[in-house]
Amino acid sequence: MTRPILIVGGGPAGLAAAHALASVGQKAIIVEKEPRLGGAPILSGYAKLVPSGEWAKDAIGGMVTRVEGNSLVTIRTGCRVQEFMGSPGAFTARLSDGSSIEAGAAILCTGFTHFDSVNKPEWGFGTFPDVVTTTQVEQMISSGKGVRCPSDGRKPERVAILLCVGSRDRQIGREWCSKICCTVSCNIAMEIREALPDCHVYIYYMDIRTFGLYETKYYWRSQEEFKVKYIKARIAEVTSDGKKLIVKGEDTLVKRPITIPFDLVIHAIGMDPNVDNKSLAAIFGIELEEHGFVGKGSAYGALGETSRPGLFVAGAATGPETIDDSIAQGKAAAMAALALVTQAHSVAAAA
Amino acid sequence: MTRPILIVGGGPAGLAAAHALASVGQKAIIVEKEPRLGGAPILSGYAKLVPSGEWAKDAIGGMVTRVEGNSLVTIRTGCRVQEFMGSPGAFTARLSDGSSIEAGAAILCTGFTHFDSVNKPEWGFGTFPDVVTTTQVEQMISSGKGVRCPSDGRKPERVAILLCVGSRDRQIGREWCSKICCTVSCNIAMEIREALPDCHVYIYYMDIRTFGLYETKYYWRSQEEFKVKYIKARIAEVTSDGKKLIVKGEDTLVKRPITIPFDLVIHAIGMDPNVDNKSLAAIFGIELEEHGFVGKGSAYGALGETSRPGLFVAGAATGPETIDDSIAQGKAAAMAALALVTQAHSVAAAA
Repeated sequence: MTRPILIVGGGPAGLAAAHALASVGQKAIIVEKEPRLGGAPILSGYAKLVPSGEWAKDAIGGMVTRVEGNSLVTIRTGCRVQEFMGSPGAFTARLSDGSSIEAGAAILCTGFTHFDSVNKPEWGFGTFPDVVTTTQVEQMISSGKGVRCPSDGRKPERVAILLCVGSRDRQIGREWCSKICCTVSCNIAMEIREALPDCHVYIYYMDIRTFGLYETKYYWRSQEEFKVKYIKARIAEVTSDGKKLIVKGEDTLVKRPITIPFDLVIHAIGMDPNVDNKSLAAIFGIELEEHGFVGKGSAYGALGETSRPGLFVAGAATGPETIDDSIAQGKAAAMAALALVTQAHSVAAAA
Repeated sequence: MTRPILIVGGGPAGLAAAHALASVGQKAIIVEKEPRLGGAPILSGYAKLVPSGEWAKDAIGGMVTRVEGNSLVTIRTGCRVQEFMGSPGAFTARLSDGSSIEAGAAILCTGFTHFDSVNKPEWGFGTFPDVVTTTQVEQMISSGKGVRCPSDGRKPERVAILLCVGSRDRQIGREWCSKICCTVSCNIAMEIREALPDCHVYIYYMDIRTFGLYETKYYWRSQEEFKVKYIKARIAEVTSDGKKLIVKGEDTLVKRPITIPFDLVIHAIGMDPNVDNKSLAAIFGIELEEHGFVGKGSAYGALGETSRPGLFVAGAATGPETIDDSIAQGKAAAMAALALVTQAHSVAAAA
């Protein structure tokens, strides 16, 4: 029997890796710092996911149930890796509960941290209660209560979604694009229009990045079927006239200032590197890339590898990522880790 | 011993799947219609790849060599699957050379077809020799001859790259975004500027979709380090004044017509569904999605599955895809196929 494979983080990538390994008879151990599995989609209460349209609690919740019920997967929640020693085929991890585990290989599926909108104060979050984040709107939808203005619980009649909050913004040290916020925002806009047909929804954007097949399913459909309005704009500030929120900016297509009142303003928040990445880098002895995400092998033969042999990485740990690509990368890393432990086992058996 | 896994198509996804399977001791058979392996990056002569910066002949060529030298991988080039019968764990494929193979599962890695620019005649391809495609420019670079004007071999002093040729264009039945052309075009623009420092390079775009970490590595770097110029424009036509190519359009940021002369115009061509998809759908008994790509399971538990149990799919067969995601999906599909044959084998052994 080969040694188990350690998976650090129980979000979509980690769950996919664990299930994939168990499905070919390979033992896996998930170590998750939070008290429960599921990662951002579960812990942050996402609603319907892009692109499957499944509810997060069903889709990712189902992946949680699938590994929880699998005898080949050991789950250690509320627990962190504090030390990671050894070499490919024979690693030892010391955990925060004082125990140690042996692993043939390990996969970091440590995800990201949502951008905190208080770092973009001129756009009103933290100042006005009706300025919220996409994550909060996901929670409103998934709770079943619907999208309402937090200040007084009323149904909004005009909603603005501001893209690139904490993304593509050098002033606040977030130069990267967060990849999926455009498409998620199209999705949320359609959800709002469906639940509140009289509500006008505007999306303020720099570039609409509904790449690949998201173009028709989200961008075009949101305009043609749901009448969502798109404004290419540079936003100056979000203020209030006492009754309404006021979004001020410049429409960059007509080069004119635009000032529009709204009931609810939604920040489409970006994906930061996991706040734990520096400590993870020290514990696991790996390198981070320039923005602070986990560095991954860029050579095509080394995708999913970190700078440390035997330690793989998948999902948003390496940069902004979609859930479906995180899942594919989780399975791909599982495959690479499986190859490593299989070969280490063969060598040991032959010796 | 389990039955081998059939991989249809020997591009990045198929090569990754075959290597992954062999690396855990699972036999695989690649059936490739072309006389050699490598897929688009090799057969179309790509130069330096996004995002690794490796030369295609090294990166993907290396993946070819790796599977060619693996005794667990059987390669059948110049060959097609003509019939595909059976059920999960026990499929039979009849090949165009008259032979048959048994397989426990199969993975379609059948890729895409480059958009043919003659379908966008008003943009000058086929009429003017100095209107070329990104693929032709990749070939100029990878051949070592450098980027030159085909008409007379001179070094261009002004180059225009037109994005979204065969993408996001309802008039010609290509509504989807081809996902990677923006980033590839940034990359090509930098290559040209590096080789020809006196050459001015302009990129005409609708939205710049350098998503995720491509934002800094390609979009910002191309502007700041390489002085590539970006024009948000709607292009009307590409004509000639006898000496220069003339790109006419409307700058959508200033709402003014713009007419600029160029020596070389490059179409950033999109990714069409593989021209064989209709016949593949009939042979394999699967469904295509609305645009003609291979339909894939969208539920997170079913990613990489087709509508036929035991038949998986990876890479650009399912829609425009990057090479690195194609590789991840190839490995992920390999993992799913491996689980299927492992379980089928266990059931058979227990019976």
